[in-house]
Amino acid sequence: MANIRVLSDDVHYTEEHILAKVQYETAHCKRTGDTIQVTPRRRWLEVRTARRPQRTGVMLVGWGGNNGTTLTAALLANRAGLRWETKEGERRADWLGSLTQCATLRVGSDDDGKDVWAPMSGVVPLLHPDDLEVDGWDVSSLDLAAAARRNRVLDVEVQRALAPQLRELRPRAAAFDCSFVAANQQERADNVLPGTRAQQVQRLREDIRDFKKAKSLERVVVLWTANTERFAEVRPGLNDTADNLLASIERNETEVSSSTLYAVAAILEGCTYINGSPQNTLVPGCLELAERHGTHVVGDDLKTGQTKLKSVLVDFLVSAGIKPTSIVSYNHLGNNDGKNLSAPHTFRSKEITKRNVVDDMVDSNPILYAPGEHPDHVVVIKYVPYVGDSKRAMDEYTGELMFGGRQTFVVHNTCEDSLLAAPLLLDLVVLAEFCTRVGFRPAGDDEYVPFHSVLALLSYLVKAPMVPRGTVVNSLFRQRACIENVLRACVGLGPESNMQLEHKLASPTV
Amino acid sequence: MANIRVLSDDVHYTEEHILAKVQYETAHCKRTGDTIQVTPRRRWLEVRTARRPQRTGVMLVGWGGNNGTTLTAALLANRAGLRWETKEGERRADWLGSLTQCATLRVGSDDDGKDVWAPMSGVVPLLHPDDLEVDGWDVSSLDLAAAARRNRVLDVEVQRALAPQLRELRPRAAAFDCSFVAANQQERADNVLPGTRAQQVQRLREDIRDFKKAKSLERVVVLWTANTERFAEVRPGLNDTADNLLASIERNETEVSSSTLYAVAAILEGCTYINGSPQNTLVPGCLELAERHGTHVVGDDLKTGQTKLKSVLVDFLVSAGIKPTSIVSYNHLGNNDGKNLSAPHTFRSKEITKRNVVDDMVDSNPILYAPGEHPDHVVVIKYVPYVGDSKRAMDEYTGELMFGGRQTFVVHNTCEDSLLAAPLLLDLVVLAEFCTRVGFRPAGDDEYVPFHSVLALLSYLVKAPMVPRGTVVNSLFRQRACIENVLRACVGLGPESNMQLEHKLASPTV
Amino acid sequence: MANIRVLSDDVHYTEEHILAKVQYETAHCKRTGDTIQVTPRRRWLEVRTARRPQRTGVMLVGWGGNNGTTLTAALLANRAGLRWETKEGERRADWLGSLTQCATLRVGSDDDGKDVWAPMSGVVPLLHPDDLEVDGWDVSSLDLAAAARRNRVLDVEVQRALAPQLRELRPRAAAFDCSFVAANQQERADNVLPGTRAQQVQRLREDIRDFKKAKSLERVVVLWTANTERFAEVRPGLNDTADNLLASIERNETEVSSSTLYAVAAILEGCTYINGSPQNTLVPGCLELAERHGTHVVGDDLKTGQTKLKSVLVDFLVSAGIKPTSIVSYNHLGNNDGKNLSAPHTFRSKEITKRNVVDDMVDSNPILYAPGEHPDHVVVIKYVPYVGDSKRAMDEYTGELMFGGRQTFVVHNTCEDSLLAAPLLLDLVVLAEFCTRVGFRPAGDDEYVPFHSVLALLSYLVKAPMVPRGTVVNSLFRQRACIENVLRACVGLGPESNMQLEHKLASPTV
Amino acid sequence: MANIRVLSDDVHYTEEHILAKVQYETAHCKRTGDTIQVTPRRRWLEVRTARRPQRTGVMLVGWGGNNGTTLTAALLANRAGLRWETKEGERRADWLGSLTQCATLRVGSDDDGKDVWAPMSGVVPLLHPDDLEVDGWDVSSLDLAAAARRNRVLDVEVQRALAPQLRELRPRAAAFDCSFVAANQQERADNVLPGTRAQQVQRLREDIRDFKKAKSLERVVVLWTANTERFAEVRPGLNDTADNLLASIERNETEVSSSTLYAVAAILEGCTYINGSPQNTLVPGCLELAERHGTHVVGDDLKTGQTKLKSVLVDFLVSAGIKPTSIVSYNHLGNNDGKNLSAPHTFRSKEITKRNVVDDMVDSNPILYAPGEHPDHVVVIKYVPYVGDSKRAMDEYTGELMFGGRQTFVVHNTCEDSLLAAPLLLDLVVLAEFCTRVGFRPAGDDEYVPFHSVLALLSYLVKAPMVPRGTVVNSLFRQRACIENVLRACVGLGPESNMQLEHKLASPTV
Repeated sequence: MANIRVLSDDVHYTEEHILAKVQYETAHCKRTGDTIQVTPRRRWLEVRTARRPQRTGVMLVGWGGNNGTTLTAALLANRAGLRWETKEGERRADWLGSLTQCATLRVGSDDDGKDVWAPMSGVVPLLHPDDLEVDGWDVSSLDLAAAARRNRVLDVEVQRALAPQLRELRPRAAAFDCSFVAANQQERADNVLPGTRAQQVQRLREDIRDFKKAKSLERVVVLWTANTERFAEVRPGLNDTADNLLASIERNETEVSSSTLYAVAAILEGCTYINGSPQNTLVPGCLELAERHGTHVVGDDLKTGQTKLKSVLVDFLVSAGIKPTSIVSYNHLGNNDGKNLSAPHTFRSKEITKRNVVDDMVDSNPILYAPGEHPDHVVVIKYVPYVGDSKRAMDEYTGELMFGGRQTFVVHNTCEDSLLAAPLLLDLVVLAEFCTRVGFRPAGDDEYVPFHSVLALLSYLVKAPMVPRGTVVNSLFRQRACIENVLRACVGLGPESNMQLEHKLASPTV
Repeated sequence: MANIRVLSDDVHYTEEHILAKVQYETAHCKRTGDTIQVTPRRRWLEVRTARRPQRTGVMLVGWGGNNGTTLTAALLANRAGLRWETKEGERRADWLGSLTQCATLRVGSDDDGKDVWAPMSGVVPLLHPDDLEVDGWDVSSLDLAAAARRNRVLDVEVQRALAPQLRELRPRAAAFDCSFVAANQQERADNVLPGTRAQQVQRLREDIRDFKKAKSLERVVVLWTANTERFAEVRPGLNDTADNLLASIERNETEVSSSTLYAVAAILEGCTYINGSPQNTLVPGCLELAERHGTHVVGDDLKTGQTKLKSVLVDFLVSAGIKPTSIVSYNHLGNNDGKNLSAPHTFRSKEITKRNVVDDMVDSNPILYAPGEHPDHVVVIKYVPYVGDSKRAMDEYTGELMFGGRQTFVVHNTCEDSLLAAPLLLDLVVLAEFCTRVGFRPAGDDEYVPFHSVLALLSYLVKAPMVPRGTVVNSLFRQRACIENVLRACVGLGPESNMQLEHKLASPTV
Repeated sequence: MANIRVLSDDVHYTEEHILAKVQYETAHCKRTGDTIQVTPRRRWLEVRTARRPQRTGVMLVGWGGNNGTTLTAALLANRAGLRWETKEGERRADWLGSLTQCATLRVGSDDDGKDVWAPMSGVVPLLHPDDLEVDGWDVSSLDLAAAARRNRVLDVEVQRALAPQLRELRPRAAAFDCSFVAANQQERADNVLPGTRAQQVQRLREDIRDFKKAKSLERVVVLWTANTERFAEVRPGLNDTADNLLASIERNETEVSSSTLYAVAAILEGCTYINGSPQNTLVPGCLELAERHGTHVVGDDLKTGQTKLKSVLVDFLVSAGIKPTSIVSYNHLGNNDGKNLSAPHTFRSKEITKRNVVDDMVDSNPILYAPGEHPDHVVVIKYVPYVGDSKRAMDEYTGELMFGGRQTFVVHNTCEDSLLAAPLLLDLVVLAEFCTRVGFRPAGDDEYVPFHSVLALLSYLVKAPMVPRGTVVNSLFRQRACIENVLRACVGLGPESNMQLEHKLASPTV
Repeated sequence: MANIRVLSDDVHYTEEHILAKVQYETAHCKRTGDTIQVTPRRRWLEVRTARRPQRTGVMLVGWGGNNGTTLTAALLANRAGLRWETKEGERRADWLGSLTQCATLRVGSDDDGKDVWAPMSGVVPLLHPDDLEVDGWDVSSLDLAAAARRNRVLDVEVQRALAPQLRELRPRAAAFDCSFVAANQQERADNVLPGTRAQQVQRLREDIRDFKKAKSLERVVVLWTANTERFAEVRPGLNDTADNLLASIERNETEVSSSTLYAVAAILEGCTYINGSPQNTLVPGCLELAERHGTHVVGDDLKTGQTKLKSVLVDFLVSAGIKPTSIVSYNHLGNNDGKNLSAPHTFRSKEITKRNVVDDMVDSNPILYAPGEHPDHVVVIKYVPYVGDSKRAMDEYTGELMFGGRQTFVVHNTCEDSLLAAPLLLDLVVLAEFCTRVGFRPAGDDEYVPFHSVLALLSYLVKAPMVPRGTVVNSLFRQRACIENVLRACVGLGPESNMQLEHKLASPTV
C-alpha cells in the first residue's frame, strides 16, 4: 500500500518532522429563550509530528492469557510470514481486525473523480508491528507455548509452528491480590511477586528497566490485559491524589489493587499505561501522577464485540430518528475471562463499563428522549466453559416507530474473543506510541502542546473511554472520525467533510 | 426544540436569505510509484439559502398503497395531535423514524463543555409537515379510508379516528401498464388512465396543475411509491436522449414505462420527481430532460430496513479492518409490494438495487480485498402473505479475523415496512423542497449554482443512490455526514470534525 | 368435531360409566454382567371412567394477574362467541394453545387407509370450558376490568367488549406474606387477609365453600397462578409431615408460605390443588395431607415457552445420537412476573425448575454422556419492563457431531406469556377434573384404584413435574404420549404404536 | 453398552433366530353422522429375526463427494480408534449423530423403579460398522485422499492420518448424464462410463458383482449420495412399468436418468437401493422391478438439518394446539451440493421434498385448519461458496395463539452438512441390512412375510419418505417410535406406551 505525501504550502516534511498548518473550528453555544446562539471560532493550528517511530516494546500484564499469547503469536507469525494448512486451504498470517494495519481512509479523488484510499500508516509514519518488542508478567509461570496450548485459541498447526519461539518466552512474576479477582483464579497463580505493595512497585519498575535495556528501547507501553478486577474503593486519603496514592502504597494499604501498582510503576518509569480491563485502575491519584510525570494513560477495557456493535446500532437508530426503547444484551464465553467474571464483584466492573455505552447517544437526542428518560438496558455475562474463547453475544434491540410500531433487531454474534482483541492491543500500542510524537500549537505560539495525559483519542478502541474533560463520545463512527481527522491534520488536511460538493452541484465550478 | 442562530462575520441572516461563507476543501491525488501525492485545495464558498419554505404539495403515485395511506394518515394525525388508546396505554401521533423531524446534530458546546444538539429544522428553515398538502394517483379507486382498511397497517383505533377525513381522499386515475409489473396487480386496477402514452402524460400534467391551483402551491413534488416495475430497456433512439424519449412517448412506444411517464410529466411541470422504487424510471433521456428543465430528480428506492442496516454493518466491519467474506440477506413480506415482487422480472429490479450496496465499501479497502475480489453476496425476497406489512429480514454476515478466525453476525429484523417508509417519504419531500432553495458560488462569482438536477444529497434516504458524477457513497454514516455538513455550511459552520481537540490536549489553550 | 365410540367386546358404555379392558405391559430389568435381562409382564387392566363431567369451578390465586384475567376473559369471550376487529381483520374467540380444546390424536384408519384424528374431548367426555365457573383471590383489589387494563395483555377492543362483565368480578382478599416474594410486590397489595396463618386458612376454606355453594358446584380446583415465591425451608418438625405442618400453621410459623396455606385449605376442602409457579408449596407435609384426604395435587410451574421448547429440542438431539454440550437460555419479560422475579430469592425458585429439565434426557443416553457428565446449562431471567407480557426467550444449543463437528441452534422465541399460559390453565383444570373420574383395577380385583394424589399424568403441562415415585419424564413427546395412551385405555384402545405394519409389509395380511 | 435378553414365554432365542410373539392392534374407523365408530382389532403376530448380520458392503454413488468421503473416513477412523489433536484437546473417532450407534431406547425399569436404556444394537443384532465394506462410483477420478482435501470437511490432522488408506481408494467410473444435473458439474466429470444406458447398466452390475466377490459379501447396498438430479418425466410407455423401463433402457431413452440406471442395476443384482437425494429415481417401473425381484428400496433424500428440525417443531406446535400460520425456511451452503442446486431444475427437486414435510401434520388437526387451509410455507436454498460444508438454515415459524396473539420462533442452525449426513448413511445401511433379516406372520400362518420392497420403516432417516401405501408420516417422533416399536416387537416387547401407570396410581398394585 502506498504512502501519501501532501503537497501544500501548509505542510513541510523535514528530516525529523512533519509540520502542518490547519484550520480548527469550535463553536460556543448559548441558549437564549427559544434560540441557541452559536458562535463559531476558527483559528490556525500548527501540528508537529516526529517522523521516526521510536524503538518500542510492550509489556503485557497477563502475558500468558488468551489475549497476550494471541498478540505474541501474531507478532511472531506476521514477522515470519507464517503459512499453515487448514481444511479450507493454506492461510497466512495477517492483521485482520486491526485499525492501523487493515483499515483505510479517504485521502482525496484522482483524475477520474474516483475516491483514493490509503492506510493510516500511509498518512503518518506509524510503528511497524514487526518492530515491536514484547515482554510481560503473568501469575502463571507457564511458558507461552504451554499457555497457548492451555488457552485453546490458536490452531494446532500454528501452535506447532511457533512453539520453538513461544517456549522461550516466560512471563515475569506478577503482582497479584486474589481479593480483587474471582477466587477461582488462585489455582493458576504460581508466579507471584512476594513482598509489600511498595516492594512490588519497585520490582515492576526494575522489570521495565530491564526490558528497556535488554532490547535497547526508547519507549515502553505497559498494557493490562489480565483479569478484570473488582472496583477499588475511591476514598480521600487513600487514592484521591498522587501523593496519597504513593503514601498508601508505602503503607501497603489493601485497597490499592495490583493493577494500580502496575500503572504507578509504568508512570514512574515514563511509560504509557493502557488499561484493557474494566476496573478503575486509574483512580484519581493515578491520573494526577500521570499528569505530573507527563505520561499517557488509556482506559478502560477493550472494545471488541457486543459493545462495539451496540455503539454502532444505537447510533444508527438514534441518528435516524428511531427511538430505542429496550436493549437487552446477553453474553457467554468460556475462557478464563469468563471464569473470572463469574464472581459477582468482578462482573460488576464489567457491567458498569458495558452499561454506559448508550448514555451519550440518548443525551444527544432530546426529541426522542425526555430528560431523565432512558431505554431499558440489561447486560448479562455468563461463564459457559464449552464455548471457550468463542464468545457469543445475543442482543435484542427494540425501537419505536411512528403509530406505535416497533422495530426489533435480534442479533447473534459469534466473535472469537482473543482474535478480535489481539489486533486491538496492537492498535493501542501503535497509536499510543504515535501520540507521544505529536504536538499542537496555536499559530504563533512557541510551545507545542502534547496530548493530555488521558489519551481520549483512543476512545475507538476502548469500551468505557476515559476522557480528560468534556463529554465522552461512544458513537463508534464519531470516534473513528476523530482519529482519522487528527491524522489528516498531521499532514495539513482538513477534516473529512463527506460533502463532495464538486459532484453534487449543477456546475462543477465549485 | 430550539432554533440556532449563528453569530459570525461569515453569516448574514437577511429577511429573505441566509448568506454564509465557508471554506471548502478538496484534495487531488496522483499516484507516483509507491507514493500518492495529495494536493489539497481550499477555497471560500458562498452559500445562499432562501429562508421561507415554499407552499408545497406532494403527489404520491400509489397513493392508496401502504406507504401512501400511512404517510397521509401520519400527516393528518400529526396535524390533529391525534391520541388513541392501545393496550400499552395512550399513544399520540409523532414522526418517529424521520431524519428531519426526529434526529439531531451537534452544533457546538456550552459553557460547561457539554455538547449542544439541535434538530435539522433548527439549523435551517425546513418545510413543516403540517404545511404539506397531499394528493395522488392510484390504479385502485378505493378512497383512502377503504385503502387503509385493506392495507392492514394502521391500528383500528387510528383508522376509525381518521376515517372521516380519509374517506374524502380519492386517488386520481393512474397511468398503468401491467406488462411492467406482476400480473397479479391487474386485479386491483380499476382506476386507470385510458389513451396513449402521450395522452396520459398530458393528463398527468393537468392533474399536477389542478392540484397546484386548488391548493395554491408554489412547489409540487411527485413521488413514486407505487409498485416496483421491471427494468425498461435502455436503447438508442428509444430513451437515450430527452428528445428521443419525448418522441417515443408520442409514438406510444411500449417500452416506455408508466413511471417514466410520471417523471416526464413532473419534469415538464417543473416538479421534483422522486423514484421510491428500484426500477430504472430515470432513463438517460429522462435525466437529460430534467437537466434541461432545471428540475430535480432523486432515485432509486426507499432505504428502510435490511439494506440500511447492511450499509451500516458492512461499513463498520470494513472500517474496523475486519473482512466481510459472505453476506446473505433473506427477506419476506406479505404486503402488496411483496406480492408484486413475487414475479421474477420485478424482483430482478429489486435485487439489483440491493446488491450494489456494498460495492463502494469493498472498493474502499484494497488491503482487505484484492482487485476484483468480493464477498459472496446473496439477496432473496419472498412473498409470505401472513406477515403482512411486518417485513422480516434475516441476514448472516461472516467476516474473517486474524489466524483464520471468523466473526458471524446473524440478524433477524422485524421492521414494519410502511411505518419505516412513511417518515422517509416525508424526509424526501422536505429535503427536496429545501434543496430548491439553496445555491452555492465560489467567493467572487456572480451566480449561485443550484444543486445538480440529480439530487445526490439525498443518498441517505435511498437504496441505490443516483449521483450525477463521481462515486456513489453507500456508507450510511458518510451519507448522513454529508447532509449534516451541507446544512452546517448553509449557516457558516465548517464540517463536523469530531476532533474536539480542546478536550484532548494537555493544555486547553487550543 | 366428532366423538368416537369404540365398538369392542372389551368396552362397555353404560349410562354412568365407560368400562374398558386393556392389556398393560411393564418390563423388569436386571443387569447381569454385560447383559440386561428383561422380563416383560403383561396383564389385563380394567379402566372405569365416569361419563358425566362434574359441575366444576376454578379458584385462581392471583386472579387479577395476567394469567388470571386472560383465562377469565377467554372463558367469557368463548362462551359469548366474541368477535372483534383488528387491523388484520375480524377475529373471534378461540382456545388456540389448548391441548384439550385444539389438539387431536389418531384413533385409527378409515376404509382408504387414511389416518383418522379426533380431539381429546371426542375420545372421553371432558368438562366443556363453557361450563367452568371461575372465582379467585388477589392481593390487589382491582376488579378484573381494571386489572386487565393494567395488565396490557388483551386488545383494547376485547377489553371494551368484556368490560361490563369483567367489572363485576372482584377478587377475594388474599393470603400474602411479602417476605416470600419480591419487595416490589408490596405496592399492589391492598387486599390482604389479616390474622394468623390458622385464621387465614380458615377464611380461605370459607371462601371455597362460599363459591361452591353460590355456584352449586360439585368440584372446585384451586390453582395458584400468582407470584413465584421463594423456596420455603423444609425442616423436620416444621412441614415434614401432615401433622407437623398443621401444627406449624396453628403456631403461625413464619416459614409456612402463603401458597402452602392455599394448598392446605384446598386439600382440607377436598379440592384439587395445582401449583402453577415454581416454588415448593407442596412440601412433604402437604403431600401427606393430600394423600390422607384423597385429593389431588399438581406441580410445579406452568410450562409455556422456553422450557417447553427445550424439552423438545434436547429430546430431539439426544434421541438422534447428537450430544448437546452447551445449553444457554436467556429470557426477559416485562410483566409483573418478571418484576417479581427480579429479586434473587424468587428467581432462585424459577432457576431450579428450569434447570432440571434436561437431566432425565442426559441420563437416558449413557452412550453420549459418561456418568456424572452434563452439558453446560445456564438459565437467565431478566426484567425488561418495555416488552411487557411479550416474553422473549433466546437460546443457544450446541451439540457435538462426529469428527469434532458442532451443530449450533440459535433460537429467538417471542411468546406472549399469558396467552400461552391461559389455555394451559384451562387444560390443567379440565384434565384434573377428568382425573377424579377415572379408576383402574387389575382384572378380577374388586376395587378401582384412583390416580395417586400427586397427579403425574399432567406432566406435559408443568415445567418441573412432581411425580409420586419413579422417574420424572421431561421429554414433551413422551409426556403427551402418556396422556394420549391413558385416554385411549379409557376406551379400550391399546397404546399408539406408530408401527402401521399393515402398510409396511410385503403382503397386507397382517 | 449392554445387550438385552428378554425372558418370556413369547420369545425364543435359537441359534439362528429370535422368534417372538406379540400382540398387534389396529383400529378401523367409520364416520356415522357426528360419531366415529372405532373398531379395534388385536391379533397375535409372530416375528422372526435372523440373528447373524450378513457380511455387507455398501457401494456409494458419488463416493468422492462430501458425504462419501466423510462416511469412508469415519469407517476407517472408527475401526482404527483414531485419535488426533485439536485446539480443544485430543479427540477420538466416534459415531455421534448415528441413531443405531449413539441413541438409546427404554427397555424397562430396574428394581428401584428407574428407567433402563439400551442401544438399538443391544436389542437386536445389528451389523457393526467395523464390519462394513465400502466401495463406489464417482464422476471424478480423484482418489479419496485427494477428494477429501478438495471437499474441505475433515480436519487436516484427520486427513493426514487417513491419507495412506484413503489414497488407495479410487472410485469406479460412473454413469453420468449432465442434462440431469447443473451444467457446472461437467467440470469434475473425468471418470464417466461410456456407452448406451443398457451398456452402463451392464457395467454397473459387473461392478457390483466384482465388489461382492472381492470382499466375499453376502449383501450389497447401493446408496446414491451423489448430486441431486432434476425430476425425470414419468410417462406411460417410458417408465411406468418394470417392462417399459427395461425396454426404455434398451432403447437408450434420454429421459431415463443415471440414478435410475443405478437403481435398476442394484435391483437386478438383488441389492437394496437407497436414494439419498430428492429426485424421482424410483419411478413406478423401478418400484415394480424391485417388487418383482423382492429387493428393497428406500427414498427419498437424507434428512439431516432444517427439515428434520421442522418436522419436530411443527409437530410440537400442532400437537400443542398452536396453529402454525407461516413457515419460512432459508438455507445456504457452499459445497458441491449447493453448487449443483444453484440450477433451477435441480433446486426444484429439492424444493418438492422439503415442501411436503408439514402436510400430514396439517391434515392431522382439523380443529386448527379448515379443509384446504395451509400455513404459508416457503423454502429457499442458495449457494454461498464461502460457508463450504457448514450449511446454514434460517427459519421463521409464526403460530397463532388465543386472542390473536402470535408466537414467533426464529432459528439459526449451523449444521455441518456431511458430518450430519455420514452417520445417517451408516444408519440407512445398517437398518436396511437388518430389514432383510426380519419376517412377520399372523400366528398360525406358515409363511413369514418380509418388509415391503418400499422400506417405509426408514422414514426417520429420509426427508420425503416413500411408503408402499397408506399415509406418509413426517412427524419425527412418530417415525422414531415406529422403529423403536418394531425393534421391540422383534424381541417380544409391546409398544412403548409411556404410561408408567405403576408410578401414577394411588396404589402400586397395577
